[in-house]
Amino acid sequence: MKSYKKELWFNTPNRVDLINITPQVDEALKESKIKEGLCLVNAMHITASVFINDDESGLHEDYKKWLEEKVPYGPACYKHNTYEDNADAHIKRQLMGREVVVAVTDGKLDFGPWEQIFYGEFDGRRKKRVMIKIIGE
Amino acid sequence: MKSYKKELWFNTPNRVDLINITPQVDEALKESKIKEGLCLVNAMHITASVFINDDESGLHEDYKKWLEEKVPYGPACYKHNTYEDNADAHIKRQLMGREVVVAVTDGKLDFGPWEQIFYGEFDGRRKKRVMIKIIGE
Amino acid sequence: MKSYKKELWFNTPNRVDLINITPQVDEALKESKIKEGLCLVNAMHITASVFINDDESGLHEDYKKWLEEKVPYGPACYKHNTYEDNADAHIKRQLMGREVVVAVTDGKLDFGPWEQIFYGEFDGRRKKRVMIKIIGE
Repeated sequence: MKSYKKELWFNTPNRVDLINITPQVDEALKESKIKEGLCLVNAMHITASVFINDDESGLHEDYKKWLEEKVPYGPACYKHNTYEDNADAHIKRQLMGREVVVAVTDGKLDFGPWEQIFYGEFDGRRKKRVMIKIIGE
Repeated sequence: MKSYKKELWFNTPNRVDLINITPQVDEALKESKIKEGLCLVNAMHITASVFINDDESGLHEDYKKWLEEKVPYGPACYKHNTYEDNADAHIKRQLMGREVVVAVTDGKLDFGPWEQIFYGEFDGRRKKRVMIKIIGE
Repeated sequence: MKSYKKELWFNTPNRVDLINITPQVDEALKESKIKEGLCLVNAMHITASVFINDDESGLHEDYKKWLEEKVPYGPACYKHNTYEDNADAHIKRQLMGREVVVAVTDGKLDFGPWEQIFYGEFDGRRKKRVMIKIIGE
């Protein structure tokens, strides 16, 4: 069994950003030389997500608006917000998910027609990481 | 290390449907002859989910009602709905999840007492797929 | 390829409880002697979650409050609640997630700075289990 690890770094200009990281995961998979296996991609920070959906800017606005309506930024009613202001980001991340696991077949991410991997940042403007871990043969 | 892949096809009669796919995943596991490992099951489309919960029709009605209340179908307020009408389905799928990873032990899905795997369709009435990828020995 | 399985048992005093299980998962990983691979941790019951976030009591109160507001306990409007009273717990578990998959590198859970694994109980006061399954080399 082979394994391969790579970390990606982000420092988004906005508090909330959704970034397509499929090219970087593709590249890591090529570097791994693994042909059959599983590829884990996860946020390493607890106010960020990795998820799979559509690369369509209107939809991304819909995600941001829905999340903001259901989990508004900053109100004093969050108990976590004594020294910090990011309780909403911790909740948003749970709703969008921490990680994805993708099948690797014939050396490729084995995706349906529109699947793309995104980094979802909910408390940005500082350096944060994503883990890629691939195991297989 | 062995690996095994199988795709399941669905074309649901309704826009929203929850379908128990545990028998098909069990069958794929038998075909794989893998005894110890991990079994990934994921929706290959971005308006559908794979999740594990209870096979109880009342609960399924509760899921559908709760999702419809929190993410209503079709209003013009979704930006994704310029050419499409399924922005709600993209959001519902995030809440229910894209995938499950199940332990394989002694050649079986290593489940708790009531765990069953479901395909969650939120924009049906067309052909869509689920991926099963099993790795192990 | 090696594999290792361990189950953890819980019987929480409250209906809703969030418990840090990182030490138990660390211990299981040591017992497995696996150095490179993937570690699956999942709830084996369908009214409980396993998730990764921050070990901060204020945030945990925020999670509980947000979930209770969006998915209130017990109202007669849940169809699942004919013989049971835990429909809300089934929905809450979907929002918080069933499982996490963690990279194993150099014999350790390969975590970002604040990542901790939690058992999320939404219908406690009885015996329930968590699965740890590790594969790798």
